[in-house]
Amino acid sequence: MKLICSKSELLKSVNITLKAVPSKTTMPILECILIDASTNEIKFTANDMELGIETKVNGTIEEKGIVALDARIFSEIVRKLPDSDVIIKTDDKLNTTISCEKAKFTIPGKDGEDFAYLPIIEKNDCVEISQFTLKETIRQTIFSIAANENNKLMTGELFEIKNNIMKIISLDGHRIAIRKIELRESYSDKKVVVPGKTLNEISKILSGEMEDMVQIFFTENHIVFEFDDTVVVSRLIEGEYFKIDQMLSSDYETKVMINKKEFLNCIDRATLLVKEGDKKPIIIDIQDGNMQLKINSQIGSMDEDIDIEKEGKDILIGFNPKFLMDALKVIDDETISIYLVNAKAPCFIKDDMENYIYLILPVNFNAAR
Amino acid sequence: MKLICSKSELLKSVNITLKAVPSKTTMPILECILIDASTNEIKFTANDMELGIETKVNGTIEEKGIVALDARIFSEIVRKLPDSDVIIKTDDKLNTTISCEKAKFTIPGKDGEDFAYLPIIEKNDCVEISQFTLKETIRQTIFSIAANENNKLMTGELFEIKNNIMKIISLDGHRIAIRKIELRESYSDKKVVVPGKTLNEISKILSGEMEDMVQIFFTENHIVFEFDDTVVVSRLIEGEYFKIDQMLSSDYETKVMINKKEFLNCIDRATLLVKEGDKKPIIIDIQDGNMQLKINSQIGSMDEDIDIEKEGKDILIGFNPKFLMDALKVIDDETISIYLVNAKAPCFIKDDMENYIYLILPVNFNAAR
Repeated sequence: MKLICSKSELLKSVNITLKAVPSKTTMPILECILIDASTNEIKFTANDMELGIETKVNGTIEEKGIVALDARIFSEIVRKLPDSDVIIKTDDKLNTTISCEKAKFTIPGKDGEDFAYLPIIEKNDCVEISQFTLKETIRQTIFSIAANENNKLMTGELFEIKNNIMKIISLDGHRIAIRKIELRESYSDKKVVVPGKTLNEISKILSGEMEDMVQIFFTENHIVFEFDDTVVVSRLIEGEYFKIDQMLSSDYETKVMINKKEFLNCIDRATLLVKEGDKKPIIIDIQDGNMQLKINSQIGSMDEDIDIEKEGKDILIGFNPKFLMDALKVIDDETISIYLVNAKAPCFIKDDMENYIYLILPVNFNAAR
Repeated sequence: MKLICSKSELLKSVNITLKAVPSKTTMPILECILIDASTNEIKFTANDMELGIETKVNGTIEEKGIVALDARIFSEIVRKLPDSDVIIKTDDKLNTTISCEKAKFTIPGKDGEDFAYLPIIEKNDCVEISQFTLKETIRQTIFSIAANENNKLMTGELFEIKNNIMKIISLDGHRIAIRKIELRESYSDKKVVVPGKTLNEISKILSGEMEDMVQIFFTENHIVFEFDDTVVVSRLIEGEYFKIDQMLSSDYETKVMINKKEFLNCIDRATLLVKEGDKKPIIIDIQDGNMQLKINSQIGSMDEDIDIEKEGKDILIGFNPKFLMDALKVIDDETISIYLVNAKAPCFIKDDMENYIYLILPVNFNAAR
């Protein structure tokens, strides 16, 4: 095999495929990027058996061939080469030389035959949204998936399509995040759970531009994202996702309108009195026109007032400050509405159109004190 | 005590004094910043018994007093306050409230009497240089002090003044870094060893501007740096520093002139084949007009040619690549001169005026392979 590609094109393609290289694995071949120039185009592939990424690379094939190279070493070499044309060449023992200007690296390659190719997916109807929307929606929901694997379904996000609406939902037992995307067309009903890891990795390689599109294909066991020169294939998480509709009652006793930034900064200040790992709640005292935030810890105490508009009853309620902050950070509105029932019922932060809904369970602060 | 200071002024002063707060200590009072408003000015002090920093704070004293506050908590509170006037107030039990706009923090304070004040230093003749020069010179030498304390003297830098020249020297047994600063006046001879930690911390708070000056005072056991509104006092390291003059012979068999950036980038590329902790040397083959760099490791191999100008004999020599890179990174010259004797003798990188000299011991690469 002999290829010529520019350093910048190589670097781009390596960085994309690197996202599907597992950091730990018992199968050394998975630590490789497959360089496939056996046809008329150059493709890089990586695959950790859950998530696979394939991307086309612009360049010249002088001699067809295929080789798998250790992803970390290959990427570091490419990164440090001068900004010029790079020649990648393998001999019959798969020893691979990577040369650029006067620098010449030689590293051992592995047989491409041993590589775990991406599954072949039958692509039926596809949903198209902008890369901006997908990237944003992931950012706005991914924080409320569960970190540990006790409940596998909680480590993923529900992608649900009904008519021309796509809903993306994540939850971890203490909170729920819901974002609604209006689609340009109507689609048949779909309901799949996508691993959080896939979404984290894909959001790193999406351009985030409004005008760049991504096509999403759904199959029984996989979801496929196609965009630019890249295909991302991910296994789905099996099982029936949680029924959350009965939790989303629209009854409330208290409605608060508050400046988002003031509220966020105030909670941020309060949490510096909480040592890491300590589960100290902040206590919110809502009265007409005023919200008082209070926190008390071994380190010290803090209180602060914020102007609000309020409808309904006064209420005293405690929250895990991190959960409030996570939601507030991803809401773009200047003023937000919070809906409360009582000190033991979840609060809702949502807009009038319910394009976003963040549900957060309160903390029993009498017990926690 | 009651003070009013702007948040920005507080933040600046806290960040300066924080550099002398030890991260670990058995004396809790040392983890504090002393706020002293017992006279007509506000001063913040921190002191880890080796290094002490005192800085003046602009603000209004409404009620004189003195208190020591936990440095980490106090700094975090200040950092997260709104950008406005801050009131610091202590009650008779030294409980301290820090309020700004509607936010109010209360934290316990400690008795200022328990604080370890800075030693009172008799200031005799002072050496004045620009903050830029001091900051740069520290950066250009600090990397070659020894990290471990086996030989205390190696953890510091020699400051030597003779007539109107200040020499700053660091060494760790494998290499020596020397920088010469020309002073505007002549001074009496001085020779002290300043702890590396002091120099690291002070370089973080120096402005680095050409027009800002720093005054340096020398006493038997201390060195004092005065600049802006800040005084830094550091203990010296006791003992006789190493005699290095006999190592600085100016004889050589080979002189190489090379583009610094090309040389540095080439070594940087080569080192990616070296696993951390592995002591693989790079091998340099110097011939007329050409230097070839080679490295061979379990990961792979690399070689690269660089155009050079050469005087004298051909030579094949091995080096720890990190030592070469550390020196090359802090030299500003586009083209550098390297002086060599044989494969077992140190090499010198230095300019014609000897404003900088970097000595690096070679590695016996036959043994190391």
